[in-house]
Amino acid sequence: MPRVRVTRRLHFSAGHRLHNPAYDEARNREVFGACSNPTGHGHNYGLEVTVEGEVDPETGFVIDLKRLRDLVQEMVIEDVDHANLNVDVSWMSGVNPTAENLAVQIWRRLDGQLDGGRLMSVRLFETERNFVEYRGE
Amino acid sequence: MPRVRVTRRLHFSAGHRLHNPAYDEARNREVFGACSNPTGHGHNYGLEVTVEGEVDPETGFVIDLKRLRDLVQEMVIEDVDHANLNVDVSWMSGVNPTAENLAVQIWRRLDGQLDGGRLMSVRLFETERNFVEYRGE
Amino acid sequence: MPRVRVTRRLHFSAGHRLHNPAYDEARNREVFGACSNPTGHGHNYGLEVTVEGEVDPETGFVIDLKRLRDLVQEMVIEDVDHANLNVDVSWMSGVNPTAENLAVQIWRRLDGQLDGGRLMSVRLFETERNFVEYRGE
Amino acid sequence: MPRVRVTRRLHFSAGHRLHNPAYDEARNREVFGACSNPTGHGHNYGLEVTVEGEVDPETGFVIDLKRLRDLVQEMVIEDVDHANLNVDVSWMSGVNPTAENLAVQIWRRLDGQLDGGRLMSVRLFETERNFVEYRGE
Amino acid sequence: MPRVRVTRRLHFSAGHRLHNPAYDEARNREVFGACSNPTGHGHNYGLEVTVEGEVDPETGFVIDLKRLRDLVQEMVIEDVDHANLNVDVSWMSGVNPTAENLAVQIWRRLDGQLDGGRLMSVRLFETERNFVEYRGE
Amino acid sequence: MPRVRVTRRLHFSAGHRLHNPAYDEARNREVFGACSNPTGHGHNYGLEVTVEGEVDPETGFVIDLKRLRDLVQEMVIEDVDHANLNVDVSWMSGVNPTAENLAVQIWRRLDGQLDGGRLMSVRLFETERNFVEYRGE
Repeated sequence: MPRVRVTRRLHFSAGHRLHNPAYDEARNREVFGACSNPTGHGHNYGLEVTVEGEVDPETGFVIDLKRLRDLVQEMVIEDVDHANLNVDVSWMSGVNPTAENLAVQIWRRLDGQLDGGRLMSVRLFETERNFVEYRGE
Repeated sequence: MPRVRVTRRLHFSAGHRLHNPAYDEARNREVFGACSNPTGHGHNYGLEVTVEGEVDPETGFVIDLKRLRDLVQEMVIEDVDHANLNVDVSWMSGVNPTAENLAVQIWRRLDGQLDGGRLMSVRLFETERNFVEYRGE
Repeated sequence: MPRVRVTRRLHFSAGHRLHNPAYDEARNREVFGACSNPTGHGHNYGLEVTVEGEVDPETGFVIDLKRLRDLVQEMVIEDVDHANLNVDVSWMSGVNPTAENLAVQIWRRLDGQLDGGRLMSVRLFETERNFVEYRGE
Repeated sequence: MPRVRVTRRLHFSAGHRLHNPAYDEARNREVFGACSNPTGHGHNYGLEVTVEGEVDPETGFVIDLKRLRDLVQEMVIEDVDHANLNVDVSWMSGVNPTAENLAVQIWRRLDGQLDGGRLMSVRLFETERNFVEYRGE
Repeated sequence: MPRVRVTRRLHFSAGHRLHNPAYDEARNREVFGACSNPTGHGHNYGLEVTVEGEVDPETGFVIDLKRLRDLVQEMVIEDVDHANLNVDVSWMSGVNPTAENLAVQIWRRLDGQLDGGRLMSVRLFETERNFVEYRGE
Repeated sequence: MPRVRVTRRLHFSAGHRLHNPAYDEARNREVFGACSNPTGHGHNYGLEVTVEGEVDPETGFVIDLKRLRDLVQEMVIEDVDHANLNVDVSWMSGVNPTAENLAVQIWRRLDGQLDGGRLMSVRLFETERNFVEYRGE
């Protein structure tokens, strides 16, 4: 059977602040710039989750996109939407919420949870001009 | 001379939280839902500023869009980008940072500052699916 | 209080076919072209509903956008999403499902149902390149 | 019958250079900046033409969008697409090709040519961040 | 010579309904949900065709994008645009028109038809939030 | 450490004309069509630069996206924005400014200049419907 990649895009709005507690304030400012403002800011994040697998000859699906959406909604979006990534999300605890780190943690949330296909890519858009991709490597 | 409307679109990322200090926590939660989370969240805001005026026969401009951009950058974006709208922005002090209120305050920042044309509209996109427009009425 | 226009954008996917039962097949083909194919086709429609009103000084809202979304979801989207506009939607019965007619019918569904502000505009995107707007006029 | 506004969006790619022959080079540079480079640059323009009219009860159309598209294609796009706006377009001759002036000239090309509805608006996007609108006023 | 991937994006609007004739109605409803409504619905599909090859030193092209567009237009778009994928398209006959299956069939239509480069990817967007990619594997 | 791909998107507006000086006018017209008009045209180009590397455990960055942006701005955008690609850009001298050739030259400008990660991909959008990608192969 043909192997196809299917992608579901979701969105969430979250607050965050970049800083490393091992740095002093001046160093945080130097490395993270305005992103380290103590009062925080936020983004409308776009999240694309891609799953690869063979097309099921009965359904014509690699994976039911509705179930993929529900899984990502439950495992990721409900935790991060309208939340502060520095303080509200258990699986971001102790992690500096850069786009890179957030994408890796989202991968770890989803990997092994799919009931069809294999997780292939997590793409996270912090803005339309800045985005990252993690493939589990 | 023909009267034309010119629009400049800009972007900023900010944190906010919706709440009314005259409400108790339960009432804030009822009215504002997840938007009232005390730790805050944020958005990539889109801002469209529209100016109407006659086309200058010498330049072919209603207003130099670069100068309009610089004005909005200086009067608005520098204050709100990577800031927390509840605590960091002097001209939002005491104002609940809903999209409606923010658009009105941005209008007030810009009105009377243009050196050509008249301010006609401020459109503010909180997400691609939620936006507001204020025309000074 | 300032008067602001707030817009909520929603989406739905529907099938349709353009034809006038008073026309014969040749005339339908002449007027509606490929849009009159008897087997039908479809679109991802974008729907923008705009409400104008004064900003409530307590909430900072013209209307709670979540309630506006829920209203449009219940009154419109649930009827048309994944439906065939020619046969499945009671309030489109006997109406040729052009974008113009659909926008007018959506207006009529929503007008008078709002619990704040007044309905100002219904914009319907059939594609990114074709859209219509009805303002109740 | 309800009055509806229908819009068709089209695109073209063109080269241009802003300058006023009555200015010297220094003044052109001061007013138009990099846009006055003698070798020119260019844009992917977006053009939205809006027509308002009553919905025809037989067709459900204000105007056949395909005919509107063909009209704009023939009267505007064929002249400006892959052309240089300063030298190749007869109806831009002697006109400084700012977005404002181009929108006004496009209006004049189309006004009176429609066989249904009345021309209501020409919106021209020079980039996604800069656009103008002319309404014949 | 450098190897470059060139992509052309096209669009079409089609109707479809998901169902497996070997399933009974209850099972079709369980697996395909609202997508199995017998009256059908539809989408504005986005189609991205990617071709990889060496840059021709004479033309600077991997493949003339206009010829690629014409090929996809002729081999795919003319068959599916404003058509019903379940009944109108010979090369979808007997195929459940999921995005996965449609992408695979489009690949098969195009593979071996190019006069330069090799077909590398077919990406099909059913909506902006759901898309699939097939690479011939 | 996880390996992540980070992408920065930038834009520029430039003029160009496709032609091969070794071809006569008829052959240029045949191969390049309207793109060979001697007076030139132009585009709003979109440029996506992707860098892959391990996430730095101290910063949570693969590369500071602001420094990546500044590098691309300085090495590429300042040379091509509001310029004519045929005559104004030293590193395009003698190169036919197709999207393919421009992407390869941009790669060569950036490769080896990064102070973290490795350059993985240059994607260049000539329009929303035509884009190319070069990966240094």
